[in-house]
Amino acid sequence: MTIEHHFHSPIQPPRRTLMGPGPSDIAASVLTAMAAPTVGHLDPYFLKVMDELQEMLRTLFHTTNELTLAVSGTGSAGMEACVVNLIEPGDKMVVCTNGVFGGRMADVASRVGAEVVEITREFGEVFSVEEIAEVVKKEKPKVLGIVHAETSTGAAQSLKELADVVHDAGALLLVDCVTSLGGMPVKIDEWNIDAAYSGTQKCLSCPPGLAPVTFSSRAVAAMDARKTKVSSWYLDMSMVRSYWGGSRAYHHTAPINMNYGLHQALRLVLEEGMENRYSRHYANHCALKAGLQAMGIQFAVAEDHQLPMLNAVKIPEGIDDAAIRSQLLNWFGIEIGGGLGSMKGKTWRIGLMGETSRGSNVLMFLAALDQCLLHAGYQLSPGAGVAAANDFYRTTITD
Amino acid sequence: MTIEHHFHSPIQPPRRTLMGPGPSDIAASVLTAMAAPTVGHLDPYFLKVMDELQEMLRTLFHTTNELTLAVSGTGSAGMEACVVNLIEPGDKMVVCTNGVFGGRMADVASRVGAEVVEITREFGEVFSVEEIAEVVKKEKPKVLGIVHAETSTGAAQSLKELADVVHDAGALLLVDCVTSLGGMPVKIDEWNIDAAYSGTQKCLSCPPGLAPVTFSSRAVAAMDARKTKVSSWYLDMSMVRSYWGGSRAYHHTAPINMNYGLHQALRLVLEEGMENRYSRHYANHCALKAGLQAMGIQFAVAEDHQLPMLNAVKIPEGIDDAAIRSQLLNWFGIEIGGGLGSMKGKTWRIGLMGETSRGSNVLMFLAALDQCLLHAGYQLSPGAGVAAANDFYRTTITD
Repeated sequence: MTIEHHFHSPIQPPRRTLMGPGPSDIAASVLTAMAAPTVGHLDPYFLKVMDELQEMLRTLFHTTNELTLAVSGTGSAGMEACVVNLIEPGDKMVVCTNGVFGGRMADVASRVGAEVVEITREFGEVFSVEEIAEVVKKEKPKVLGIVHAETSTGAAQSLKELADVVHDAGALLLVDCVTSLGGMPVKIDEWNIDAAYSGTQKCLSCPPGLAPVTFSSRAVAAMDARKTKVSSWYLDMSMVRSYWGGSRAYHHTAPINMNYGLHQALRLVLEEGMENRYSRHYANHCALKAGLQAMGIQFAVAEDHQLPMLNAVKIPEGIDDAAIRSQLLNWFGIEIGGGLGSMKGKTWRIGLMGETSRGSNVLMFLAALDQCLLHAGYQLSPGAGVAAANDFYRTTITD
Repeated sequence: MTIEHHFHSPIQPPRRTLMGPGPSDIAASVLTAMAAPTVGHLDPYFLKVMDELQEMLRTLFHTTNELTLAVSGTGSAGMEACVVNLIEPGDKMVVCTNGVFGGRMADVASRVGAEVVEITREFGEVFSVEEIAEVVKKEKPKVLGIVHAETSTGAAQSLKELADVVHDAGALLLVDCVTSLGGMPVKIDEWNIDAAYSGTQKCLSCPPGLAPVTFSSRAVAAMDARKTKVSSWYLDMSMVRSYWGGSRAYHHTAPINMNYGLHQALRLVLEEGMENRYSRHYANHCALKAGLQAMGIQFAVAEDHQLPMLNAVKIPEGIDDAAIRSQLLNWFGIEIGGGLGSMKGKTWRIGLMGETSRGSNVLMFLAALDQCLLHAGYQLSPGAGVAAANDFYRTTITD
């Protein structure tokens, strides 16, 4: 017997600190859970894991929605799952686009035959309840889709009071919570949201690969009233939900080990406590902001709608976007994100999501950025960023 | 600060031997690779991993197809990816259905507006080149879809000479290789297959979560000539392929750690050698068959088209399907599969896929089944199955 030699080295990733728009740093216990032995997708043990996942996801979404589960794909598959299950060909959908992910939602909807009405804002801006009320009153859509935390711009969309105007117009409210879930409140029931999707690789700090979704009874009724089959077999909730919830009928083979990882990631969220977790994200955002401002770096979105977990900042004049990001990666192992769409080359996106949101990372990043900017000849007072962040922590955090 | 307590125990799966229709047992090194630290989806290291994955997948598929990659979903997402990229509304597709997965392919195609012509065979039977030639000559479809290894029935479909008749009719040949890939030859180029999809959790022995796919230049030309957008944004190959192949344009966040696992699983396949791996699967199938036949248990499909990695056998008269499967699971930690569709309650599906395909598992399974059947009052000569399997190994395997 001859043994062929393998050509590639085993997996051995470099050490990184993930401060981009996701994935975020993963806790060791989550990685360890992912490496637990695979069992069958109908194994009684795995069915119990699924039940526990649903329960923990409901807590996370602040909801009692029965139809709450993890779609077997990344966040964009969660977006597609929500849209294709709620929309039939010819249905009207209003999509609020103020960044890449609103635009993506409009694209997804148009592909399955929705009549899409897109209302747009400049990247980085947000929508008012009044302008949305006006549009839904006029358009009478079946669904209004909006992004809670625009990962491409760093803007936080307020959702309070939105459901009332959407429901008054007879529409369902669909919300993208990919980046917000686990890092700031996402109150599905209190805010009367009908459908929402997220991803695992942002503030949940689980590797990418699953998309938590939740549907209100109103959304379920709309799905039950469909006249046509869902365009996607893989994402058809009428079948997926019998596997997760009821008869346990085989649909597709669930990604077992990804679900193990999410289970442990959610345990960590609940162990920390949701309110504590939101406060931590907010505090580290404030510290980072204090530091950046002391370095003369400005945020790309207005003060009143900045996301705590994704900080989009303007690249200082004369500074080479790609060069600085390469140096951060190669000199310090720090990944941050560049701008997307109209913000490409103009902004950096600095993520402080989940496990990444720590004081030590804030200080390290500010210090490393100091080095890169000094190297590039940018005029700044060395150490001012770190000093300002430390000052924030010292004056606001009490044990 | 109050700390909420977590409610659920950490992930700690029971010990199983996975002898069902998949997932199969996973090598420790694959699980370890999955637990390596997550890096970003545009990290130079991950881009290298993707390049290596593509290269190894081409070897596995016996192809030089440039468009060969792992779709970010399980095998059924691979099926959907192939169908929705090749089919536009109104296109005709012939689907050969002789089991659950042919039926699923027809469903997927009809959801995206294909005019589906289904040719059917009883579960467990296979199709002849002649009957397919006749249908494609008459129907002139854009695509003919067929399943290589029907996981629901244990039947192996010969693919040799099929491409000629399909191409003569101007159609593309799409093949489901979910269960065959890595356990028996799948010769994409030699057999002139235009598109094929697989899953990771069968003979590749990687946890479920990714779907290897490959497309010939003929299939790529058909995709490039589309007049309509692909119905699924998530699975749209025109975008997915620029992330894997060309400009590295961000599409969706790849499931990083799943790709780590697949990388290591493919390294193990290549280290063993593909021909050795096919022989191993075939030998253990023969040993299992010798054992089962000595116990009076018959295969559900004819001798000339039995799959080496999935053994569908008839449940002996008077034996309770569910009771025996529960005992195998609870007494011995062995998972086997029940029948699907018209074979429900009538067959067991015993998988010997990838890591699971070992002499020790064959012997253990036969011995455990002996115990369960004796317990149920089935008349058999105790130990006859094990003796026959050992006899097979002793007389046919040389070091």
